[in-house]
This record gives sequence, C-alpha cells and structure tokens, in this order.
Amino acid sequence: MKLILYAIIIIFELCFQMAWSQEKLQVIEDFKPSSLNQPEKIFPQVNSQKQVRASILAPNANKVQLDIGGVKYDMRKDDKGVWIGESNPQDEGFHYYQLNIDGASVPDPGSLYFYGAGRLGSGIEIPSADQDFFALKNVPHGLVSENIYFSKLTNSFRRCFVYTPDGYNENTKMRYPVLYLQHGSFEDETGWSSQGKANLILDNLIASKKALPMIIVMDNGYAYKTLDVNFTDKNQSKESVFENVLITEVIPMIDAKFRTIPKRESRAIAGLSMGANQTMRIMMNHLDTFSYYGGFSGTANYPSSDVIDASTFLDGKYKDGNALNKQIKLFWLGLGTKEPAPFPKSIGAFRTMLEQQGIKYVYYESPDTAHEWLTWRRCFHQFASRLFK
Amino acid sequence: MKLILYAIIIIFELCFQMAWSQEKLQVIEDFKPSSLNQPEKIFPQVNSQKQVRASILAPNANKVQLDIGGVKYDMRKDDKGVWIGESNPQDEGFHYYQLNIDGASVPDPGSLYFYGAGRLGSGIEIPSADQDFFALKNVPHGLVSENIYFSKLTNSFRRCFVYTPDGYNENTKMRYPVLYLQHGSFEDETGWSSQGKANLILDNLIASKKALPMIIVMDNGYAYKTLDVNFTDKNQSKESVFENVLITEVIPMIDAKFRTIPKRESRAIAGLSMGANQTMRIMMNHLDTFSYYGGFSGTANYPSSDVIDASTFLDGKYKDGNALNKQIKLFWLGLGTKEPAPFPKSIGAFRTMLEQQGIKYVYYESPDTAHEWLTWRRCFHQFASRLFK
Repeated sequence: MKLILYAIIIIFELCFQMAWSQEKLQVIEDFKPSSLNQPEKIFPQVNSQKQVRASILAPNANKVQLDIGGVKYDMRKDDKGVWIGESNPQDEGFHYYQLNIDGASVPDPGSLYFYGAGRLGSGIEIPSADQDFFALKNVPHGLVSENIYFSKLTNSFRRCFVYTPDGYNENTKMRYPVLYLQHGSFEDETGWSSQGKANLILDNLIASKKALPMIIVMDNGYAYKTLDVNFTDKNQSKESVFENVLITEVIPMIDAKFRTIPKRESRAIAGLSMGANQTMRIMMNHLDTFSYYGGFSGTANYPSSDVIDASTFLDGKYKDGNALNKQIKLFWLGLGTKEPAPFPKSIGAFRTMLEQQGIKYVYYESPDTAHEWLTWRRCFHQFASRLFK
Repeated sequence: MKLILYAIIIIFELCFQMAWSQEKLQVIEDFKPSSLNQPEKIFPQVNSQKQVRASILAPNANKVQLDIGGVKYDMRKDDKGVWIGESNPQDEGFHYYQLNIDGASVPDPGSLYFYGAGRLGSGIEIPSADQDFFALKNVPHGLVSENIYFSKLTNSFRRCFVYTPDGYNENTKMRYPVLYLQHGSFEDETGWSSQGKANLILDNLIASKKALPMIIVMDNGYAYKTLDVNFTDKNQSKESVFENVLITEVIPMIDAKFRTIPKRESRAIAGLSMGANQTMRIMMNHLDTFSYYGGFSGTANYPSSDVIDASTFLDGKYKDGNALNKQIKLFWLGLGTKEPAPFPKSIGAFRTMLEQQGIKYVYYESPDTAHEWLTWRRCFHQFASRLFK
C-alpha cells in the first residue's frame, strides 16, 4: 500500500512539474514596471503578452493572490519570503486590481491608487497600441484645479475638479465653452483626470488643433438630500439630488468663478456608465442648458434591453425627433466591443428608438475593450474633438 | 517535570490574561471613524484617549499588526476572521501608519493615502485642541491646481501644485505675492495641500483677514540632473538640481502663467525639514529673488549641532548681520517641543549663530508635537499670517 501511495505522489509531482514548466514556458520574460507604479517601485510589471506580474514581501503568509477583475491568481513564495505571480493576458488599458494576503484584500504597495469599485485601490496599465493619444507629451498643459464648495442641497462640502486649457490664465479676455463630465458607479470626481487622463487627452487634442480649447468640470455624481456621513442607518432613504446640485449649484458657481460662455450652445454634458445614464436624463430635462451630449457605455434605459416606447420613455422627451435634431448639436454614443450584458443590448435598444424617431446621433465602438477606462478614454477622445464646432 | 511545565504555562496565561484585562480596562470605548477615512469606511477609528483602533478582514492570517511610527501593536482575530487592535495613545495631529499582515506591510484599505516615507500609505488624524485653524469651513476657498511642466534640467516631466486664493479668477487685474513652499524628505509635491492642509489654513486665515491673499507654489524637492527613472543603477551619482529648477524653470513659469508680483519684496520661500534646509540655502543664494524665509523643523547646518562659524558657514552668507536685517523682511524658524535629536540642538546651534550675528528672527515652538505634520501646519499658520505685510 505504501509503495502505491508513494507512486501516486511521485506521479502527481511529475504532472505538477510538467504543468509548471509548461506554464513557465508560456511566460515571456520581458516584464517592465507598470507606468502607474509609485516612484522607484519595480513591481507590478507588465510583459508583451499583457500579463501582469505582482510581487510582495510576506514571509509569514500562507497564501498570496493577485486579484484582477475578480479573477484570482496564486502567487509563489521564494526562500526570502517574497511572493511573485502572474495573471493571464489582460485587455489593453487600465484595470483596477488588488492583492489578497491570507484572505485580506489590500492595495498593492507598489502601485498608485485610484478611486473605483467604491475604494481607493491599485491600478495597472496594459500598454495599448493607440496609447499616444493619452500620453503625457511635451505640449502645453492645462491646469486641473480642485474646487471645494459647500452644497446647501446636500448640506455638505463637495468638490469638483476643473480643467482649464493652456492659456486660460494668460488670456484674461477670452471666454470658454464648458463640458460637464461624469464618472461611473462606485467612482468619484477624481476618475476622469486620474485613470481617465481627460486632461492629457484634451491637451494633446488642443495642441494638434483637433479640439477647441474648453473647460471641463468633473463633479461627484453621488449627491443625497439627507447625507448621513457615518452611514450608520443603512436603510436611510437616499434621494439623489445630483441633477439639482449640478443645475442650481455647480453651473452657476462655475459660470461665476470661471470665464465661461454661459449659453446652451457652449455647454456639453457627458458621462460614462452610471454617469451616461445620469447625464442623459439631465440633458433631456435641461435642453435650455446643454446642446451637446455624450453617453459612454450607458443610456437612460439601463439596465433594460426592452423595446423603448418613445411616447412614454423619459416622459416622452424623445417624441419629437425633428425638434430634437434642431436643438441638439451633437448626440454621441459609444461602447466597447467586449462589453458584457446588459450594455450592448440595452444601448442597442436605445439606438433603435433613436432611429425610429429619426434622431441624428453618432455611434462609436472601441475595439477590443470592455466596460473599462480605455473604452472611456477613447470615447472622450472622439467626443471632445467634435465639441463646440 | 510535566506538572511543573503545566504550572508554568498556567501562571503565564494568568499573567497574560491579567495584563490583557488591565489593558482592556484602559481602553475608553468612544472610538469614532478617523476624519481621513475613505468614504463610508468605519475603520480606522480614534478614541478620546488618542488611541488608534484598526480592523481588517484576514481570515487566514497568522498575525496582523497595526504599525504606527515604527511601533507595532498586535491585533486580535474574532471568529469571523476580522482582526482588530489598538495603539497606545498618540500625539495629536497627523501620523503615517500601515498594517502588517503575516509580514507584509500594506496600506490600510480603510484610510485615505498620503505620500510620505517614500510611498503612498495610510494616514490617521488624532483630533487636536486647536484643529479649528485647519478645519474645512464654509468660507471662500481657493483653488489647488495641478500644473504639469517639462523640465529641461532634469529631462523629465515634473509637477507643482499651485494654490490661488478665492477671487483670483474673478479679479483679473489683481496681482498676488507668491510663497514657494517645500515638503520634507521622502515626501512630495502633494504633501502640503494633502496632509499639510495649507490651502485650508490659508483659506481660513484670509477669510478672517489674518493673512493677505497670496499664491502658494508647491513643487517636488527631488530633482536630479541624470534621472534614471528605473533606478537600475543604485550607485548613479545624484546631483540635485532643485535650486536651479526652482530659480530658472519654476519661478519664470509661475510668473508667466499666474498674475504674480514678480519682485523679491513679494516672494517668500519656506520648507519643512529637508525642505527647510533646501530653501534656506536657496534663500541665501538668491536674496535678489526672495525677502521672506520660513524654516519649519530644519536649518542648513543639519544634522550638525556644532557651533557655527558665520565667517565660513554657507560661504559666509550670514557674516553681515546688519546687511541681512535690511534685506530680509522676515526670517522665521519653528520647531515642535517633542522633536527628536538632532533637530532641537541643530536648530539651537543655528539660532545661537543668528543671535551672535545680530540677525533678527522669529522663533516659534509647537507645543507637544514631534517631527510631524501638526508641527508644520502650525508653523505654516503662524508664518503665513506674517507674510507680505
């Protein structure tokens, strides 16, 4: 019996070693530190196969995993207590990730941190073939300003980030159009200028004369009338007042504080995912305020994929296609080709409605990206170049 | 023998339990979430005894510790795998900290992150009796702008944050004095507006008419001629060119981009710790550029406490006290009363030299704070109220 047991163990070990060496053969050893690492940090890294390699010193841990997009990859420990491990190849672009140490999900101490999935966490950038459009280049750069304000509607301090293009400070006579640009669910007002790179994308577009100089305002899409900051009462009714905050508090503040062109012809509103849904409703309720709309990976019928009845949807706001075509200067929709359900069908149902109503719109598909930031960087890049022209 | 062993174990356990219950008795159960937590995060917390309580889910960990200022406190695991533990009472103010999970030092997933100790890590705020001066209040707020620039001297992209006071954007005819404000070692250009709260301190001072409206420029004090971004050659010679970057690149850029008063009478320079040392040298080398100086917890003789010979120190820059008293409008030094060696004696030796040379200066001591951010917030608060008057 013992001999059989030994034999089985040996066979298992051989199989494991074979699998292991096969796995090792697959890994191309051209890993480089991620562009989103903290200064001087060597890990995490990315190779030409788009695999992520993470590493952490955890000498007394039993199990350490790299967790990207909910998929967990076991890491290996060396004799110095350093764990190392690789993910499967990832889509190009930005991904949130974390490490799991003996059951604790924590940020990787090597990466910069980004607000997403309801927390500040690690981010990794898989170089994309078209990364030049959002690269940091030696072109004139606009400023991204943190603007703190007190909201009477939420009875709390809130914050928006405001991009002003290069030249804004010097050309004190010039006034600028404004884009209001919103993040997605479980993200915040930092997303578009951090992982979204909206400022760099617009710097590059303006430098190459593919977009007009404009102001971008990035606020927080979560705004509640009764804010229980400690969230002690989980069942409290949460009535979103974001639309009201934006229309009655943020826009007047921006028009007073910055040299805007305070007219509907010079105002755009756009958002991604939850932000696309929110801003579409705000756009349709305030056609006197905005004339350009961008919806990135989201529409106001989310999450439904049902046929939309234009006579009742959003109180019939899409009923009169001819009138809308005259009022709306740009109605722009975008989606990644790898996005999961319900986005393709839900947005598809919305497009069908637009077409049935004869409403003009622009539709863009981001190749080989899912419901992630490279989709939205590309959407923003396309959308911004069409604004205010 | 076995009985003796058992007896010893029981005695040990009793001692442990007694110590434990004593320790538990000492903890006052009035913990509240830290003001620096991520949105909706309940931990870490602080109680009225200034103890920090951290908590993390780590069901399979063997040992989890709370690490504040290099002192590690063991945490306890409950039956759901949640670890919880408390520190000893801490000084009032801001402290960097981290969690240690089976030997891995990681940020606490509950806190916001701050750049210090050479990495983005967790921060905790122990409420201080005088916290009103840096509180976020319903007063007009200035903007903090991220300003990206390409430095020819370092051949790299760099970044400074620029505070412009409330009204800067609207009053397009008005020009403002400028304070150049530097961080300490292993910190970066985010420190003063993040953990330093310089923007809120100045907002409050300006609102109560205790300081004049001014611009603050916060750059990164690390600047090297040959920047090996991957730091593969650890022995590379690192010649700091920060002084040159500031004088020949940053100041001209700020004077061109912002409505400054580009004269020495309207320029101040200050810094903390390493930044105090750096800016003192820059001040003395460029008295044609600056007329106000602030050194918080640092002087240019650091780390020496030896008697300073003014005829040779900094090339004799302090030789002529009378001339300096005419040129320098404010020479300001500050220190926390609990600072460790070598700061008190080193700064003491510097003050002795100033007194021997008959050089006028202002000296401030921050009560009950060490080499940490509450010292520097208080220093900034005192210093800023004396500028440009």
